[in-house]
Amino acid sequence: MVTEETVKVIEWLGDRVRLIDQTRLPQAEVYLDLTDYHDVAAAIKELKIRGAPAIGVAGAYALALGALHVKAATRKEFLKEFEKIKQAIASTRPTARNLFWSLERLAQVAQTSSEDVARTKEALVNEALRIHAEEAEATLKLSEFGAALLKDSSAILTHCNTGALATAGYGTALGVIKWAIKQGKHIRVLATETRPLLQGARLTCWELKKADIPATLITDSMAGYLMSLGKIDGVIVGADRIAANGDTANKIGTYTLAVLAKAHNIPFYIAAPTSTIDLSLASGKGIPIEERRPEEVTGFQGVTTAPADMAVANPAFDVTPHHLITAIITEKGVVGEPYGEGIKEICHVQAG
Amino acid sequence: MVTEETVKVIEWLGDRVRLIDQTRLPQAEVYLDLTDYHDVAAAIKELKIRGAPAIGVAGAYALALGALHVKAATRKEFLKEFEKIKQAIASTRPTARNLFWSLERLAQVAQTSSEDVARTKEALVNEALRIHAEEAEATLKLSEFGAALLKDSSAILTHCNTGALATAGYGTALGVIKWAIKQGKHIRVLATETRPLLQGARLTCWELKKADIPATLITDSMAGYLMSLGKIDGVIVGADRIAANGDTANKIGTYTLAVLAKAHNIPFYIAAPTSTIDLSLASGKGIPIEERRPEEVTGFQGVTTAPADMAVANPAFDVTPHHLITAIITEKGVVGEPYGEGIKEICHVQAG
Repeated sequence: MVTEETVKVIEWLGDRVRLIDQTRLPQAEVYLDLTDYHDVAAAIKELKIRGAPAIGVAGAYALALGALHVKAATRKEFLKEFEKIKQAIASTRPTARNLFWSLERLAQVAQTSSEDVARTKEALVNEALRIHAEEAEATLKLSEFGAALLKDSSAILTHCNTGALATAGYGTALGVIKWAIKQGKHIRVLATETRPLLQGARLTCWELKKADIPATLITDSMAGYLMSLGKIDGVIVGADRIAANGDTANKIGTYTLAVLAKAHNIPFYIAAPTSTIDLSLASGKGIPIEERRPEEVTGFQGVTTAPADMAVANPAFDVTPHHLITAIITEKGVVGEPYGEGIKEICHVQAG
Repeated sequence: MVTEETVKVIEWLGDRVRLIDQTRLPQAEVYLDLTDYHDVAAAIKELKIRGAPAIGVAGAYALALGALHVKAATRKEFLKEFEKIKQAIASTRPTARNLFWSLERLAQVAQTSSEDVARTKEALVNEALRIHAEEAEATLKLSEFGAALLKDSSAILTHCNTGALATAGYGTALGVIKWAIKQGKHIRVLATETRPLLQGARLTCWELKKADIPATLITDSMAGYLMSLGKIDGVIVGADRIAANGDTANKIGTYTLAVLAKAHNIPFYIAAPTSTIDLSLASGKGIPIEERRPEEVTGFQGVTTAPADMAVANPAFDVTPHHLITAIITEKGVVGEPYGEGIKEICHVQAG
């Protein structure tokens, strides 16, 4: 077990949820105590908490919190309200698989519950806590598996934020990097700033500073050039949804890094807990890609960077086809081509 | 001749230089009247005027302005001061070939001048004016040549700013796009924002709005994904220096777009006047790449986007090898592989 003191990204406090407002980082460390599930849902929508695994945990707590406050005399009444709350939370963000995965886990608990509504509420809170604990443990496990793939004295590029903040655990891609460094490997870390919302500059750099890990910040547009100079030996990123064939949705810009890595013969890794895998989708084509507000592209924190009313494209994610991925690192092991079989295996699906 | 009313990017006003401060766009249109060549040199250094061809014009005016104010009784004294001023202007920015090209043109005039210092000063001003006129004319010519390459009903991506602001003329890559549209072609224009200094968002979008050309702004990280969706049919960019073999230095991020274009089988064009070509360099390896201040990457216009003291890489340009370039468009014609021969030909160099 890793004992490192990490930031408390999200916590269940019996009757409320506490989370650090990630939109305020790195300038201010502000914690929000939320007693209404609507506020947790809004926090997800507004990216106060973000990162696929962390959204999964936040969604579970939001649903448990909502369920706790339901006034229902009968199981039937309770389940009706529960379903409404679940739908509201499910509608916050479309791409990250983990959100739907954890809502379904709580729905299972509700569906198989007894007539005693109070006990059901308790069971739902416990399931949310279990999801958080299991997911945090999964990020530790996958970080250990992934660290074995990173070569000593190599320069590793990561994109967006995939550390404690993104996972409410140890991290996915950033967890792998941290573990390799903890093992004594000399890793030169490069982080893309990750426009438009700058999760790399704001959050990854903040986490690396806290962990006392030196890193070099670059704009997204610099990765290719640095690869051409031989200054990047590998790329590792997280995932928001992985299809059954290994196609992976992740933060916009990931696909470009995968194409560049292939062109420069550099390994390109995805790191994610299995809760990110969506076996219902045969390929990445079916993954819903969130289109966000134009203002994210035309400015930053009140500074306008483009003329008013510019037309904008703002897909928050892109899809990287499996053939550009060297390996997918999960808590159940590392999967490579053929992804279809490997993914089935780690998800314990019977083949044929 | 195109009669369109374009912005007066830089003007010679007899005893001073007037230029629009490009660091203030798109929020404010501020014109600066500069009577001291040091101020013009500072304007180049601080990117108040930028873009390789425009830097060439500004450098010529700066040197003419400096020469005008030299107090020298003899030709020898004058040439000594002239050389000092030339060195000061040459040291402002290292990558754009056009600056050195135009300084050399003025140096030729000075070297071959008569004993009459006043007449030499006049000849230098005239040479600077000639450079501006010829370069502006060159951008019109190359825009016409390039427009023939753009297919009707296609979506064309451009990077950074290469319009009037970057050239003190019609434009290079953006000139090609504008001319194609003027010809009646339906071109869907996409512009990258171009971090760190956002010349795409701030300047290209501003120029396109002025020209009433609709366009879609994207972050640099989105180009790959849009190509994978079939939403980009071609890429056209400018150049800061072109080596004898066609390798091209241009705004950071250009190389990534070239790799992406190749991976998606999309044409990738460079548009530049021949003043950008540096026959003294056999390949792109010798092109000096300017490394700029870390603050450009850790923030934008007073907004800090990363923790204090983050290590940063900030190369302002990258080098695209000629094999990724479909064609180089100049005012002397369009050159393709083998670039070595084609470039020699348009530069009127005797082969063998």
